[in-house]
Amino acid sequence: MSKKKRKKAGLPPGSVVFTGKRKVEKINIHYLQYNEFEIKEANLDNQSISSFHAPVDQFVQWYDLRGLHDTALIEEIGKVFNVHPLALEDIADTHQRPKLDEYDGGVFISLKALSFLSDTKEVKTEQVSLYFGKSFLLSFQEDETDLFLKVRERLQLGNGRIRKRQADYLAYALLDMVVDHYYIVLDELEETIENIEADLLIDPDESIKGKIHQLRQELLRVRKYIGPLREVASKFENLENDLIDENIYPYISDLRDHIIQSVDALDNYRDILNGLQDLYLSELSFKMNNVMQVLTVIATIFIPLTFLAGLYGMNFAYMPELHWRYSYFVLLGIMVAIGFFMLRYFKRKNWF
Amino acid sequence: MSKKKRKKAGLPPGSVVFTGKRKVEKINIHYLQYNEFEIKEANLDNQSISSFHAPVDQFVQWYDLRGLHDTALIEEIGKVFNVHPLALEDIADTHQRPKLDEYDGGVFISLKALSFLSDTKEVKTEQVSLYFGKSFLLSFQEDETDLFLKVRERLQLGNGRIRKRQADYLAYALLDMVVDHYYIVLDELEETIENIEADLLIDPDESIKGKIHQLRQELLRVRKYIGPLREVASKFENLENDLIDENIYPYISDLRDHIIQSVDALDNYRDILNGLQDLYLSELSFKMNNVMQVLTVIATIFIPLTFLAGLYGMNFAYMPELHWRYSYFVLLGIMVAIGFFMLRYFKRKNWF
Amino acid sequence: MSKKKRKKAGLPPGSVVFTGKRKVEKINIHYLQYNEFEIKEANLDNQSISSFHAPVDQFVQWYDLRGLHDTALIEEIGKVFNVHPLALEDIADTHQRPKLDEYDGGVFISLKALSFLSDTKEVKTEQVSLYFGKSFLLSFQEDETDLFLKVRERLQLGNGRIRKRQADYLAYALLDMVVDHYYIVLDELEETIENIEADLLIDPDESIKGKIHQLRQELLRVRKYIGPLREVASKFENLENDLIDENIYPYISDLRDHIIQSVDALDNYRDILNGLQDLYLSELSFKMNNVMQVLTVIATIFIPLTFLAGLYGMNFAYMPELHWRYSYFVLLGIMVAIGFFMLRYFKRKNWF
Amino acid sequence: MSKKKRKKAGLPPGSVVFTGKRKVEKINIHYLQYNEFEIKEANLDNQSISSFHAPVDQFVQWYDLRGLHDTALIEEIGKVFNVHPLALEDIADTHQRPKLDEYDGGVFISLKALSFLSDTKEVKTEQVSLYFGKSFLLSFQEDETDLFLKVRERLQLGNGRIRKRQADYLAYALLDMVVDHYYIVLDELEETIENIEADLLIDPDESIKGKIHQLRQELLRVRKYIGPLREVASKFENLENDLIDENIYPYISDLRDHIIQSVDALDNYRDILNGLQDLYLSELSFKMNNVMQVLTVIATIFIPLTFLAGLYGMNFAYMPELHWRYSYFVLLGIMVAIGFFMLRYFKRKNWF
Amino acid sequence: MSKKKRKKAGLPPGSVVFTGKRKVEKINIHYLQYNEFEIKEANLDNQSISSFHAPVDQFVQWYDLRGLHDTALIEEIGKVFNVHPLALEDIADTHQRPKLDEYDGGVFISLKALSFLSDTKEVKTEQVSLYFGKSFLLSFQEDETDLFLKVRERLQLGNGRIRKRQADYLAYALLDMVVDHYYIVLDELEETIENIEADLLIDPDESIKGKIHQLRQELLRVRKYIGPLREVASKFENLENDLIDENIYPYISDLRDHIIQSVDALDNYRDILNGLQDLYLSELSFKMNNVMQVLTVIATIFIPLTFLAGLYGMNFAYMPELHWRYSYFVLLGIMVAIGFFMLRYFKRKNWF
Repeated sequence: MSKKKRKKAGLPPGSVVFTGKRKVEKINIHYLQYNEFEIKEANLDNQSISSFHAPVDQFVQWYDLRGLHDTALIEEIGKVFNVHPLALEDIADTHQRPKLDEYDGGVFISLKALSFLSDTKEVKTEQVSLYFGKSFLLSFQEDETDLFLKVRERLQLGNGRIRKRQADYLAYALLDMVVDHYYIVLDELEETIENIEADLLIDPDESIKGKIHQLRQELLRVRKYIGPLREVASKFENLENDLIDENIYPYISDLRDHIIQSVDALDNYRDILNGLQDLYLSELSFKMNNVMQVLTVIATIFIPLTFLAGLYGMNFAYMPELHWRYSYFVLLGIMVAIGFFMLRYFKRKNWF
Repeated sequence: MSKKKRKKAGLPPGSVVFTGKRKVEKINIHYLQYNEFEIKEANLDNQSISSFHAPVDQFVQWYDLRGLHDTALIEEIGKVFNVHPLALEDIADTHQRPKLDEYDGGVFISLKALSFLSDTKEVKTEQVSLYFGKSFLLSFQEDETDLFLKVRERLQLGNGRIRKRQADYLAYALLDMVVDHYYIVLDELEETIENIEADLLIDPDESIKGKIHQLRQELLRVRKYIGPLREVASKFENLENDLIDENIYPYISDLRDHIIQSVDALDNYRDILNGLQDLYLSELSFKMNNVMQVLTVIATIFIPLTFLAGLYGMNFAYMPELHWRYSYFVLLGIMVAIGFFMLRYFKRKNWF
Repeated sequence: MSKKKRKKAGLPPGSVVFTGKRKVEKINIHYLQYNEFEIKEANLDNQSISSFHAPVDQFVQWYDLRGLHDTALIEEIGKVFNVHPLALEDIADTHQRPKLDEYDGGVFISLKALSFLSDTKEVKTEQVSLYFGKSFLLSFQEDETDLFLKVRERLQLGNGRIRKRQADYLAYALLDMVVDHYYIVLDELEETIENIEADLLIDPDESIKGKIHQLRQELLRVRKYIGPLREVASKFENLENDLIDENIYPYISDLRDHIIQSVDALDNYRDILNGLQDLYLSELSFKMNNVMQVLTVIATIFIPLTFLAGLYGMNFAYMPELHWRYSYFVLLGIMVAIGFFMLRYFKRKNWF
Repeated sequence: MSKKKRKKAGLPPGSVVFTGKRKVEKINIHYLQYNEFEIKEANLDNQSISSFHAPVDQFVQWYDLRGLHDTALIEEIGKVFNVHPLALEDIADTHQRPKLDEYDGGVFISLKALSFLSDTKEVKTEQVSLYFGKSFLLSFQEDETDLFLKVRERLQLGNGRIRKRQADYLAYALLDMVVDHYYIVLDELEETIENIEADLLIDPDESIKGKIHQLRQELLRVRKYIGPLREVASKFENLENDLIDENIYPYISDLRDHIIQSVDALDNYRDILNGLQDLYLSELSFKMNNVMQVLTVIATIFIPLTFLAGLYGMNFAYMPELHWRYSYFVLLGIMVAIGFFMLRYFKRKNWF
Repeated sequence: MSKKKRKKAGLPPGSVVFTGKRKVEKINIHYLQYNEFEIKEANLDNQSISSFHAPVDQFVQWYDLRGLHDTALIEEIGKVFNVHPLALEDIADTHQRPKLDEYDGGVFISLKALSFLSDTKEVKTEQVSLYFGKSFLLSFQEDETDLFLKVRERLQLGNGRIRKRQADYLAYALLDMVVDHYYIVLDELEETIENIEADLLIDPDESIKGKIHQLRQELLRVRKYIGPLREVASKFENLENDLIDENIYPYISDLRDHIIQSVDALDNYRDILNGLQDLYLSELSFKMNNVMQVLTVIATIFIPLTFLAGLYGMNFAYMPELHWRYSYFVLLGIMVAIGFFMLRYFKRKNWF
C-alpha cells in the first residue's frame, strides 16, 4: 500500500482516482476486432474517443489501454461499455487486491503481472484489469511493455482455437499469459534461494542474513499478489453467467491449477527459507561454540602454567626451591605434564 | 478490555451502562433530513428530546450523536425508534467487539474508528455504532471530532448517488468513511515499520527491541478491532431483509474487499515485523560472535607469549638459558613466530 | 484432568461417579417457584427428597443444588425429572469439558465458572451444570458460594423481563451470569500481564521468566475452559426445540458474542505474552552482549600490556633495553598509546 | 510405520498380511452369545473353525479373537460373516490408521488401545478391530491381555442396559472401554509432565532436555493414534444404517466428547511441554549469563591489578618508583581502590 | 519447478511441450488387452502408430508408454482416444502438480511415483499419468523402470478380481501400486530420522545440522508431491460418472486412507525432525554452557592467585614481607585456601 492511498480517503465510492506512479507519457490504445474469418487492428490515440463503439455481436472487440493516469478517458470508456463505477474505481486504483466482480452485462477482473528485475533481484509488479462482456474486452495495463504480445500474435495467425471463441476465451487467454509469467518469476526466486543455500553451506558470512531477510520480504510481497488469485479463479470457475461458454470451464480449471501450483511453490519457498534461516542461526551458534572451545582450551592450559611461572618469579628471600639444582627442569617437566593431561582431557571431551 | 468492564458483571442483559471514559462535555446531536429534492439540517441539544420523531417515509432521517455518557438519552431515543435493548446496551458499551445484529425493523452495526496519533505513535480508537431502518439512521460516536464530515458535505452538494438512496446506502457510506480512515492508519504503521527496518539495517541499537515490541502490541490491538469486521461485512452482504435495496450489494461487496485488504495488510505487517525481530536477534548473535572472536584472537595469541615471558622471569638459581648471550633475542624471535602463525591460523579460520 | 478420573475407567456408561474434591459438608438445595404474578422460595435439605415434584406447567421451578458428592441424591432427582443417565454422569464428573446435549424433554449444559484468587494469582474453577425443560431448571454447583445471587435478586424484584419468561430464559440468565464473571477474571489476567510488562521494561530480573511461565499455563488452562463454550453457544443458538422460545435468540446470540470476545481476549493475551517472552529473551541476549563487551574491552587492552610488562620482567643476563636510561618511561608511553588506540578502536566499533 | 510395511507393497488390494510382531503363541477365541434372558460362554481354539456359525437373529454373538498372526483363520471367519476383503486386510495390518468403514451388512472399526508402561515411561499400543452386523460382533486384539474383561462382567451380571441391546451397543461399549483407558494414559503423561516441571523449577540439569524430547515424541505418537478417532466417532454418529438403533446416538455422542476431550488434553500437554522447553532454554541462557557475569567480574577486576604488579616486576635499571620508601604500600592502596570502585560499578550494573 | 518451465511461457494452452529431462532413448509402448476369459500382450514401437485402435467394448485395452519426449506421438494417441488437449499438455509437463480432471469420455489423473536412492539418501520422483475411459487406459511414465510389473503379473495370472473388472479398476490398481511404493520411501525416511536421532543422542557433531537440513528439504519436497493427492483421491471418490462402477468405491476409499496415512506420517516426521532440531540446538547451548563453566572455574581460581604471585614478584626496594622467614610458605597456604574455597563455592553453584 503506497502513501498515495490516503489521498482517496473520504471521496465518494466509485470515484476514479489514479493512485499509482505515472509510468507512461501518453496513453496508448490498441484496438483489435476479430471473428473466425477476419481480423482488423488499429492504434487509437486518446483524442479519438469517438472511435469507441458500443459492442456489436458479429465481432469480438478488444481495446487494450496502456497507462492509467488519464482517469477522464477511463470514465469515458466506462460510459460507452456501461461499466459499473466501482469497477472503474478499481481500474485506476493500482493498490487493488486481485479480485473478480460480476456486474450486470460484464465481468471485472483485476490482478498483478509480475516480472523479475535481475539486477536488483526485485520483483516488479504491474496492475492489469480486464472487463469483458459477450463480445468485447477492455484490458488496462499500467505500463507500456506489451504483456499480451503473444496472444496478439496467436490472434493474427488465426489457426488456433482463439479466433473461434468469444470474449470469455480471450479473457482466459490473457489471464493465462499473466500467470505464465509467474512461473518465470518463481524460477528466478528459486534460483536466488539456491544461491543463498550454496553460500550458506560453503561460506556463511555476514551478508547472508541480509539476503535471507530481503528474499523473505520479497516472498511475502509476491504471496500477497498471487494468493488472492485462487479465490478469483474459483469464482471464475463457478460463474453461472451467460457470458461464459460451457466449454471454457476446463481451461479455467487448468488456470486455477496453475495458480494453486504457484502459491504452493511460494509456500514451499518460504518453508525452505525458514529452514535456511534456522541453518544460518545454528551455523552461527556452532561457530561461536568452536571459537569458545579454542579460547577455553588455550586459556585453561596456560593459565595454571603462567601461575606457576609467576610463583617462582616472586622475590621472597627464603624460597628453598629456587636454590635446588634441577628445580627449573623439574618444573618444566611438570608444566609439560600438566599441559599434556589437560589436552588429553579436552580431547576426550571432544572440544577440538 | 478496560477495568470498567467489571462494573457491569451481574446486571440484567439489556442494561445500558456507559463503560468508556467520558470524552465529551455535553452530548451533541446533529440532525439531517433529506430526500432527492430537499435537505434540512439542525443541531439539537439533549434537552429537546421532544424533537425526536418517529421515522417517516418521505425522508431519510439521520440523527448523529456525539458522546455516549448520557445513557438515559440513549434509552429515550431507543424507545422512539423501537431499538432492541441489547442494541442499546452495545451502543453504550465501548468495549464492544465489532458486530452486526439484525432485529425486527432495524439493523445494528458496531465498529471502531481508528486514527493515528503521530506524536506518541499510538493508534487511537473510537467506538461507532449505527442503527438504521428503512428511512432513518442513528449514529453514535464516542468523541466530538466529526468523522462523517465528508459524507455530510456530499449530502449537502446533493448531486451524487447518495441523496437518491435510502438509509441503507447512508449506512454504507458511513461505514466506507470509517474504513477509508483505516488506510491512513495502515500507511502510518507501514511507515513506522520501514523506519524500524532502516534503523536495523544501518545501526541496530538497544532502542529497537522496544520499538518492535511496542509496534507488535499496536498491530495486535488494531487487528483485534479490524479482524471481526470481515464477518460483519459478509453478514451485511448476506442480509436478506427488505431494509436493504438490491443495488447496494456491489457497494457492500466493495467495502468487504477493502476490509479484507486491510486485514491482509495487517497480517503482512506482522509477518514483516517478525522478520525484523528475527533479523534483530541474528544481528545480536552476529555482533556477539564478532566480539568473542576478537577476544579470542587477542587472548589466545598473548596468553602463551605471556607464559613464556613469565617463565624467564623466574628466579631459579640455575637456569642456563638466562646466561646465554642471544637467548633474549632468540626468544623474541620465537614469540614473533608464534604470534604470526596463530594469526595465520585464525585468518584461515575466518575469525577476523 | 485429575488423578481421580481413572477410578471411573471400566464402569458402564451412565455411572454417576463424583470425580472432584468434596468442597461442601452437606448438600444445600435452594428452591424457587415463580410465574409473572407470584414467587415462592424454600431451602430444602437432602433428606426431604419427597419435596421434589415433577414439573408443573403454571410455574417455573428452579432447584439449585450446591455440592455434588451425594450421587445418590443426584440420581434421585434425575428420576423425578426424567434426566438421561449420561447427563447425570456428566453432572457428577467435575472434569467434564463444556458441552450442550439435547435430550428428549430437556437440554443439558455443562460449563466452568471462573474466579480469580488475588493472593495466589490463580484462577479457581467450579463446574456448573444446568438441565432444563419447559418449566423447570436444575442447576448444580460444586461449591457453596452463591454464583447466582444476582439472578435470584432480579427474580425477587419481579419487575424485569425474567419473571415473564420460561425456564429457557432462566437458563440464559444463569449462563450470562457465569460469562459475566469471566470478564472479571480476564481483567485480572490483563492486569497481571501489564505488571509483568512494566517489570520487564524497568528491571528485568530472574523472577520474570517464572511469572511468564506461570501465567502462560494459567492462560492455557482458562482457554481450555472457555474455548469449547463457543461451540456450546452456537449449538444453543441453533437448537430447534419447542423448549426454546423464539424471542430468546437475540439474547443467546449476544451471549455467544460475549464468549467469542472472551476467547479473542485470551488469544490476544497469549500473543502479548509471547511478545513479552521474546522481549525477555532478547533482553537477556542484550545484557549478555553488554557483559561480554566489557570483558572483551578490559581483557584485550590489558592482555598485551601485561605481556609487555612480563617481557621486561625476564631475568636474561643480556637484555640491552634494561640498561638504557629512559626505556622505562618510553615503555610506559608505548603502553598508554596501545591502550588509547585500542579504546578508540572499540569505541568506533560501538562496543561500549 | 514399521519396516514390515514394505513387504506388502505390490500385493493386490484385499491381501490379508500380518504386519506386526507375533505377540501370542496360539490364537485364543472367546465366544459369547446372549440376549436379554440368557447368556452362553465358550473358549474355542483355532482348530474348531467349524464352530463358527453364521449370525442368527435371536441372539447377539460375540467372537473375541486375541492374536492376529493366523491370517488363514481371519480369512475363514471373514467368509462365514461375509466381511469385505479390505476390512480383513485392515484387521491383519497393525499399522492401520484408526478408521471406520461401512460395508454392506457390516460396520468395520479399527483403533488403537493404549496402556502406560510405568517402568520405561512408554506408551504401549495394541491394535483393536471391530466388525459388527445386526446381531454379531467380531473383535480382534493383537495381544493376550483381556481389554474387555469389564464389559464381559457386565454382560454376565445381566442387570444393565447392555443385555437388552443389539451388537451396535456392544460395539459402543467396547469402544468406550478402549477410550476409558486413554484417560489412564493421559493421567500418567500429565504426571510425567508435572515431574519434569518440578525438576525444572527446582534443579534444572542435563537430563531434562532428554526427558522433554522423549515425552514430546511420545505425545506425537499418542496424538497420531487418538487424533483420527474424532473422525471415526463423527462418522459413527452420522451413520444412517439400519444396523444402528436410534437410542444409541446419545451414547456415541458422549463417546465422541470423550475422544475430543482426550485430543484437547493432548494438545494442551503439547503446549505445556513447549512452555517447559522454552523455560528450560531461558533457564540455560540465564545460568550462562550468571556464569559469564562472575567470570567477567573476577577477570576485569584482577586483570588491571595483575598488570600493575607485572609493571613493577620489570627489571629496568632505572625505575625511580622502585626506590621510594612507601611506593609498595601506595601501590597496594591504589590496587584496593581500583578493586573497590570496579566492584561498586558492577554492583550498580546489577551484575552479581 | 525446473528451469525448463519457463520455455513454455506464452504458448497457447493445450500446447504439448516436454519439460523434463529425456530419460529414455526410445519410447517403449507395452500393450495389453484382456477380459475375464482371455488376455493378449504386445510390445509396440513408436513407428507402429497404426496399431492404436479406438477403444472397443468387449476388452479392456491398456497402452503403457514409457518415455515422454516424443510429443508428436502423444498427440497422435490423444487423437485416437479423443483426449482433451489440456490433458495431453499435462502428460508431457513433468512439473505438473498431482491432479484429477474429468473430461467428456475420460478421466485424467496425474501423480508422482517416488523411489528412494539409498546411496545419496535422496528421493527420486517420476511423473505418472493415467487417462482412462470405459474400456481403455493409457498410462504414461517418464522412465524405463517398470512400476506396474506386479499389476501385469496379476493380470496374467487371471485368477483375481482384476480380470473381471473394467478400466476403472485397472486405474485404481495402478494408483494403488504407486501409493504402495510411497510406504517404502516413508520407511526409508523414518530410518534416516532414527539414525539422526541416535547420532544426536550419542555424539552430536557438526555434520548433524547439515543432515537435518537436507532431510527437512527432502520432506518438504515429498510433501509437495503427496499432499495434493488427498484432493485427487476425494475427487475420485466423489466422481459421479458412468465410467466408474459402484463396487469400486470401497477400494478408492481405501486408497484415500492410505494417502492420508502417508501425509500424516510425513507431518509426523516433520514434527519429529523439528523436535530433533530443537534438541540439537539445546545440545549446542548446553555444551557451550559446560565449556564456559570450565573456563570460568579455571580462570576465576587462577586469576587471583596469579595476581598474588605477581605482587611478590615486584622489585620494590622496600617490601617487608619479602624478608620474613616463612612468608613464602604462608602465601602458598593462603593460595591453597583461596583455591579450595572457590572450588567449594562453584561446586555448590553446581558449575561442574
